[in-house]
Amino acid sequence: MAGVNGVSGVNAVGGVRALLFDVFGSVVDWRGSIARDLTDWGQTKGINIDWESFARAWRSHYQPKMQEVRSGQRDFTLLDQLHREALDVLLPAFGINDLTEADKAHINLVWHRLDAWPDSIAGLGQLKAKYTVAPLSNGNVALLNNMAKHAGLPWDLNLSTQWFKAYKPQPQTYLGAVSALGLQPHEVMMCAAHNDDLLAARACGLKTAFWPRPHEYGVDQVKDFSADHDWDVIATDIRDLARQML
Amino acid sequence: MAGVNGVSGVNAVGGVRALLFDVFGSVVDWRGSIARDLTDWGQTKGINIDWESFARAWRSHYQPKMQEVRSGQRDFTLLDQLHREALDVLLPAFGINDLTEADKAHINLVWHRLDAWPDSIAGLGQLKAKYTVAPLSNGNVALLNNMAKHAGLPWDLNLSTQWFKAYKPQPQTYLGAVSALGLQPHEVMMCAAHNDDLLAARACGLKTAFWPRPHEYGVDQVKDFSADHDWDVIATDIRDLARQML
Repeated sequence: MAGVNGVSGVNAVGGVRALLFDVFGSVVDWRGSIARDLTDWGQTKGINIDWESFARAWRSHYQPKMQEVRSGQRDFTLLDQLHREALDVLLPAFGINDLTEADKAHINLVWHRLDAWPDSIAGLGQLKAKYTVAPLSNGNVALLNNMAKHAGLPWDLNLSTQWFKAYKPQPQTYLGAVSALGLQPHEVMMCAAHNDDLLAARACGLKTAFWPRPHEYGVDQVKDFSADHDWDVIATDIRDLARQML
Repeated sequence: MAGVNGVSGVNAVGGVRALLFDVFGSVVDWRGSIARDLTDWGQTKGINIDWESFARAWRSHYQPKMQEVRSGQRDFTLLDQLHREALDVLLPAFGINDLTEADKAHINLVWHRLDAWPDSIAGLGQLKAKYTVAPLSNGNVALLNNMAKHAGLPWDLNLSTQWFKAYKPQPQTYLGAVSALGLQPHEVMMCAAHNDDLLAARACGLKTAFWPRPHEYGVDQVKDFSADHDWDVIATDIRDLARQML
């Protein structure tokens, strides 16, 4: 919990007024949610593949697809569309052919139906009493809104990076959110279970909070088991973040 | 309550999934809130003007200032800045001179501290269980967020027209909100106490709901005492809107 200059985390963040949350993996369990949702759906369709493996394979397309946008190779494209392009590659690779368009659309929208980790809703609800709480996520506006309604996430506002036509960790996403809130960077804290997200936010002048999600990727997890830097707050989960920030 | 084609209001809006609310005057009482807030503040400063009259005079600059943007005469400018420009004209007109910059900033932010009409929070809370509820307001993102925290407005997301760099009734505000939500125009209902806002929304294909706020402008009120058109729903207030929509 030691912040920069040896100041304890909570003292170092006394001027913070808004908390921005990474969502996929940090607030919601995409791997477990997709496996549960599509296993149930698959049983109604007689499609009994390993959907947990499918979820991990799908997520492996996430950064490469966004990189096509970040690099300027293509215009800004909503994550729903990037998910769909990856899905259309994955389905035949898993031996699934001849789905209807409605079936494919239903599968693609599973990213709108993710469930929170067990501590997320309680922690966010507590933090909301003192701070503005918002997702700063590469999920598009509709995805994040549908997810919030589905999972019960009590956001104050929806700061999808879609508003900035960019994808994290591009700096215009962090700085765009700060500006929209009418705040200065040091009044905003990026909160995530991913060290690289926090590193980019800190480079923009934001405060930082980390907690680990060691089961996010299952057998594919290779990093983010712990804090790699002296983030302003280091917590065990979002409920613990609330305990430290209130 | 008769909708188009003689279909009753509730049946005509069966496919609606999101409700967008006009805010100033429709959800919050700007005139009464500003009068209360600045009368209290003025007493601590020995400035005892008629702040209710001041509020009405300030609001009279609202449409002309936004028209400078809508006409293309100037680039998109946040409502906070437009409010400030009008304030700097009004203060000397009301005999108030020599305020500090901090005082002027505090007065200008009174638009972030408006209170809801008595029925708004209960009605929005009920509607939120079934629909996405969001402001579609010319207030900037920070203004609407601070107001929501101050007044306790339970929005799902913040659809300030700032995101679209335009001001209602420009069509890109209504259509931008519909697109961001991933919906079709007929799945979205514009909800307001102002007939002209609903007329512009209907022209974009949105559903419409009206209730009157006959005391919004006080002695300056000249219109919007009742529905001028066959809006899809006509209610007495937001609690009644919830009763009809649930």
